Amino acid sequence: MTQKPEVGILMGSDSDYPIMLEAARVLKEFEVPFEMTVSSAHRSPGRTSRYAREAAERGIRVLIVGAGAAAHLAGVMAAETQLPVVAVPIDSSVLKGLDALLATVQMPSGIPVATMAIGKAGARNAGLFAIQILALKNPALAEKYSSFRKDMADGIEAKSQAVQERLNKDLG
Amino acid sequence: MTQKPEVGILMGSDSDYPIMLEAARVLKEFEVPFEMTVSSAHRSPGRTSRYAREAAERGIRVLIVGAGAAAHLAGVMAAETQLPVVAVPIDSSVLKGLDALLATVQMPSGIPVATMAIGKAGARNAGLFAIQILALKNPALAEKYSSFRKDMADGIEAKSQAVQERLNKDLG
Amino acid sequence: MTQKPEVGILMGSDSDYPIMLEAARVLKEFEVPFEMTVSSAHRSPGRTSRYAREAAERGIRVLIVGAGAAAHLAGVMAAETQLPVVAVPIDSSVLKGLDALLATVQMPSGIPVATMAIGKAGARNAGLFAIQILALKNPALAEKYSSFRKDMADGIEAKSQAVQERLNKDLG
Amino acid sequence: MTQKPEVGILMGSDSDYPIMLEAARVLKEFEVPFEMTVSSAHRSPGRTSRYAREAAERGIRVLIVGAGAAAHLAGVMAAETQLPVVAVPIDSSVLKGLDALLATVQMPSGIPVATMAIGKAGARNAGLFAIQILALKNPALAEKYSSFRKDMADGIEAKSQAVQERLNKDLG
Amino acid sequence: MTQKPEVGILMGSDSDYPIMLEAARVLKEFEVPFEMTVSSAHRSPGRTSRYAREAAERGIRVLIVGAGAAAHLAGVMAAETQLPVVAVPIDSSVLKGLDALLATVQMPSGIPVATMAIGKAGARNAGLFAIQILALKNPALAEKYSSFRKDMADGIEAKSQAVQERLNKDLG
Amino acid sequence: MTQKPEVGILMGSDSDYPIMLEAARVLKEFEVPFEMTVSSAHRSPGRTSRYAREAAERGIRVLIVGAGAAAHLAGVMAAETQLPVVAVPIDSSVLKGLDALLATVQMPSGIPVATMAIGKAGARNAGLFAIQILALKNPALAEKYSSFRKDMADGIEAKSQAVQERLNKDLG
Amino acid sequence: MTQKPEVGILMGSDSDYPIMLEAARVLKEFEVPFEMTVSSAHRSPGRTSRYAREAAERGIRVLIVGAGAAAHLAGVMAAETQLPVVAVPIDSSVLKGLDALLATVQMPSGIPVATMAIGKAGARNAGLFAIQILALKNPALAEKYSSFRKDMADGIEAKSQAVQERLNKDLG
Amino acid sequence: MTQKPEVGILMGSDSDYPIMLEAARVLKEFEVPFEMTVSSAHRSPGRTSRYAREAAERGIRVLIVGAGAAAHLAGVMAAETQLPVVAVPIDSSVLKGLDALLATVQMPSGIPVATMAIGKAGARNAGLFAIQILALKNPALAEKYSSFRKDMADGIEAKSQAVQERLNKDLG
Repeated sequence: MTQKPEVGILMGSDSDYPIMLEAARVLKEFEVPFEMTVSSAHRSPGRTSRYAREAAERGIRVLIVGAGAAAHLAGVMAAETQLPVVAVPIDSSVLKGLDALLATVQMPSGIPVATMAIGKAGARNAGLFAIQILALKNPALAEKYSSFRKDMADGIEAKSQAVQERLNKDLG
Repeated sequence: MTQKPEVGILMGSDSDYPIMLEAARVLKEFEVPFEMTVSSAHRSPGRTSRYAREAAERGIRVLIVGAGAAAHLAGVMAAETQLPVVAVPIDSSVLKGLDALLATVQMPSGIPVATMAIGKAGARNAGLFAIQILALKNPALAEKYSSFRKDMADGIEAKSQAVQERLNKDLG
Repeated sequence: MTQKPEVGILMGSDSDYPIMLEAARVLKEFEVPFEMTVSSAHRSPGRTSRYAREAAERGIRVLIVGAGAAAHLAGVMAAETQLPVVAVPIDSSVLKGLDALLATVQMPSGIPVATMAIGKAGARNAGLFAIQILALKNPALAEKYSSFRKDMADGIEAKSQAVQERLNKDLG
Repeated sequence: MTQKPEVGILMGSDSDYPIMLEAARVLKEFEVPFEMTVSSAHRSPGRTSRYAREAAERGIRVLIVGAGAAAHLAGVMAAETQLPVVAVPIDSSVLKGLDALLATVQMPSGIPVATMAIGKAGARNAGLFAIQILALKNPALAEKYSSFRKDMADGIEAKSQAVQERLNKDLG
Repeated sequence: MTQKPEVGILMGSDSDYPIMLEAARVLKEFEVPFEMTVSSAHRSPGRTSRYAREAAERGIRVLIVGAGAAAHLAGVMAAETQLPVVAVPIDSSVLKGLDALLATVQMPSGIPVATMAIGKAGARNAGLFAIQILALKNPALAEKYSSFRKDMADGIEAKSQAVQERLNKDLG
Repeated sequence: MTQKPEVGILMGSDSDYPIMLEAARVLKEFEVPFEMTVSSAHRSPGRTSRYAREAAERGIRVLIVGAGAAAHLAGVMAAETQLPVVAVPIDSSVLKGLDALLATVQMPSGIPVATMAIGKAGARNAGLFAIQILALKNPALAEKYSSFRKDMADGIEAKSQAVQERLNKDLG
Repeated sequence: MTQKPEVGILMGSDSDYPIMLEAARVLKEFEVPFEMTVSSAHRSPGRTSRYAREAAERGIRVLIVGAGAAAHLAGVMAAETQLPVVAVPIDSSVLKGLDALLATVQMPSGIPVATMAIGKAGARNAGLFAIQILALKNPALAEKYSSFRKDMADGIEAKSQAVQERLNKDLG
Repeated sequence: MTQKPEVGILMGSDSDYPIMLEAARVLKEFEVPFEMTVSSAHRSPGRTSRYAREAAERGIRVLIVGAGAAAHLAGVMAAETQLPVVAVPIDSSVLKGLDALLATVQMPSGIPVATMAIGKAGARNAGLFAIQILALKNPALAEKYSSFRKDMADGIEAKSQAVQERLNKDLG
């Protein structure tokens, strides 16, 4: 990642890494330069504010933020920057991410946070959503995204055939 | 709204209008041209697909989509366009928007929808989030947004003083 | 399944196959010809619409649709056909199918979806419900279903005796 | 309703009537003969069983059943008939119909109940779903339903224009 | 169990046996004669009604009923008998017993069901509650129950000491 | 209420009175002597323990306990008596009685509480359940209860006719 | 309030004032000097951090913080001070405070927030809890609190008599 | 623990020990003397009341109370003492601690309980919160806590670097 990062991926705890890796994978796949950082809304509030306030001038265009439990990180970042903040609620408490989802999505009027699904699907979609934003002014990226979408649709046909074969095997 | 719209606001039912008006108010306040349309994922699927597929080439850059109950509209739109789709779950069933929230936010891997809070706060934030996206390549809009944020922060001080006055009156 | 299928089983992802197999098993048991297809509301919207629009003229009478998370597939199918759509919410997210249930059952007025229980019990019941519909004009199938019901009731007696034997062993 | 009824609408309490009226309205609109009865799974179990057991031979083809709270009525009916049972969970307790929904939809393997949305939307859709079933062997009814669907889709356009007019008035 | 049973334990499925065994254990411990039966509200409605209607005249004084998912069994039994029905919601669906709890406890006015906790704790307490009822007119049983309560309270002291020893070992 | 009370109705707050009145109405209707008391698990713990410990020797046979929010009253009473405790969760917080339900029903193994539905239906059923317990050794009360049940079943027929008349009026 | 405040009451929005007034009333009743301020975690993050960081040195000993929806305020305050933070989740969204509760109470390991009940009861208890903390080193305050508790317990007796009188009137 | 304990840790069952050990670890780390006891609100109510009533005069300043399911222990303790009660809801039923959370946090007006997160994070935070209270009048402890906070913030930087290394390894 020697290029100047356009996307910043943040997580509230290093235990969130396996989830947030999904966002990183997507960005790498689309060759969008990014950086990944751990910073807690509660345990390192200064570091978190500083990161949010300085992100735009460092060339970051979109922030992807993952956090679990009373997930305040995305909201706290959004309060300190006007870059789009895309949030991933993480299933890291016994409440299975419902706490993280509500703590993330129910932002009060004035400071938006764009919330994705809980967990890996959400992290992957956060990466894709960042690309959709960046593609608005990057026709090459838009083109690539368009191919990705087409491939995804085409892949369903193969999966459908595979399922029919399993069915034939299972029910004879 | 004589300018070519950059944001499309959609809603699944005309009864969602009072909620989605909040998004429109924000866009008007920031002088971002937009259009507003009713189209149902279920009652008018053809119209909905067509709108989504044609939005980008008509110059739309961001879609804001509000729907209630089994809120499929944002997901269905997102499936047919690569523009960023910002969704507003609407409290229009007895389940108080929990159904709309889960039906909107829990999108499977591959097709992201950026979900805002349930109801009016969410609709207003959807407008603001659209502006944050558009501001990435529009410095004048970014400047305006920055002032808006500063005014909002400054407004808190006045509200705090008003509360102290009410307190003095109430508890003497 | 060389006969023309009367029931179409759809699922949003090939990972839903082990659940939807339960519906297939029932149809096979009752010798109702069916077909099984993977098609996503979001990843392959065109394929999904086409399937729904063409099902009736291909002789399909009932659609059984399984999907998880923000489960839009049944609603999207129902929007494009007037065949009865029987839906199975699938437990494929951390919210344990509550998201899929609400996204499936809370359909707005105008487009009905007949929702079954979450998971395997629901898939099996979707198959049985399809048979109940088809049996309305197929007396032989109705007869067979009636025997099935009687056998199920009779089976309880044997299970009750087995439980009493376990109890005698466990509590002496 | 002098014709022999093809659909039986049941409700667990007379207080459910305003909800279940929506199902009746649809059936009347489509000229499908029906009957409406109050019978409780708990307060009048004998009456309820009898109704379920005799419905088919009286010519009933579909049962529409509404109940609230610990809503057992649809399940109890389904246990005594092999006619399709379409259920409407009713919001009649402080839990806002969540209890009725879960008590209705989570039927165990073997006895299906086709669950609609909570409340009026669900009752209306139960009527429409009954028509979809009956239309499978009634081409005239199928034709009528097809027009209904087309009208519903066409109606969205008018609603969309009305919303645009309200918007012009509200935001000038 | 050669004595005439005073308590009838019912369960909707043989898979509920390991849970309901807890109720049986308690009754055996207190030497209260009981019987255990499988009968489903949905799969064997006739058997279920018959059991409920005949229980009182066979000398049964309390019914303990366990069921999962859309747990109708206790309500259906209560509708056919005026014996006290004590219910145990069972965690046998992906919704972790929340469905069974609401389907059991939210009985409409007129037919009470005495609901215990979900799962094994509830089954054990159902046995204890049956004993509390029977003890109202059986002083020997009341005496025994009183000792049981005293032993339970006394047992806490020993557990407290054991915890202190573990603590000393763990934190040195 | 000059007779020695056989049932004690308790509530945690005087604001619970309109709910608990339903239990009182039933007992009066069946001429079962009872008393009604306010005592809080938290605000008057001594009074509450004392009441529970002395109830049995004062001739009370069943306790009916209503409480809202973190509803500890029934559990706390049950801990101090071996009389059957029948509990009514009350909808007195913004969580609509879900808190009271879970705080009441999820009793740990060893101390049972018989939980009824949330609110008025539950209070009425608590009264009926107390009568079912007392009727076990009071044949006259059992007889009366049996008539009550029969009247309730018979009443459904009249309600059903009334609904049909409303239907004729509404749909002509 | 001319004395140096020992308790700081904060709220995220002036609309939270009627709730937080309950905390103020308690402090005034116990003559504990306090101050009341509006500051948002999201709209005025700088003001919020500053308040939290400077509170201790201004003599504040306990912070009482109320917020609704994605209620981050208490957690954000707690991250910047080591004073005890007592939080009041406020019912200001359609989710009835469940969002505020989970966003407040589910704090990750390292930064505690002491959460009270949702709404007015919680605000009043936050005031009382602050007094319990301050009373640890203020014997006069401890004495006063002890009287308050005794009065509260004694008040139950009067409420109980009032309920009995209402009962006599209502049921004659 | 030869010093007179300043904090009492209670749990409702010895099975709660592994959770409550987290609170003990923190207190030991900060060299705050404490004691640990098992006592049930329901199984040993006398022991529980006695402990609560005598704690203050034995020199205890803060109570930390863990309980699961219908978690009444913290509320019952709080009713009998005016020491601050800090509660830890424990995930020991199938409802994953949601029951314990609501049964703990929704205390009625008058008797506050300071609720922490469900499970280990909550237990650890309960220990930290006790220290925050004790530090109000213990400058050495306050100093130590301040270092702990600083170390925690500094630790994030190292975790962030570790995550970046894992990322380089995983995505090359």
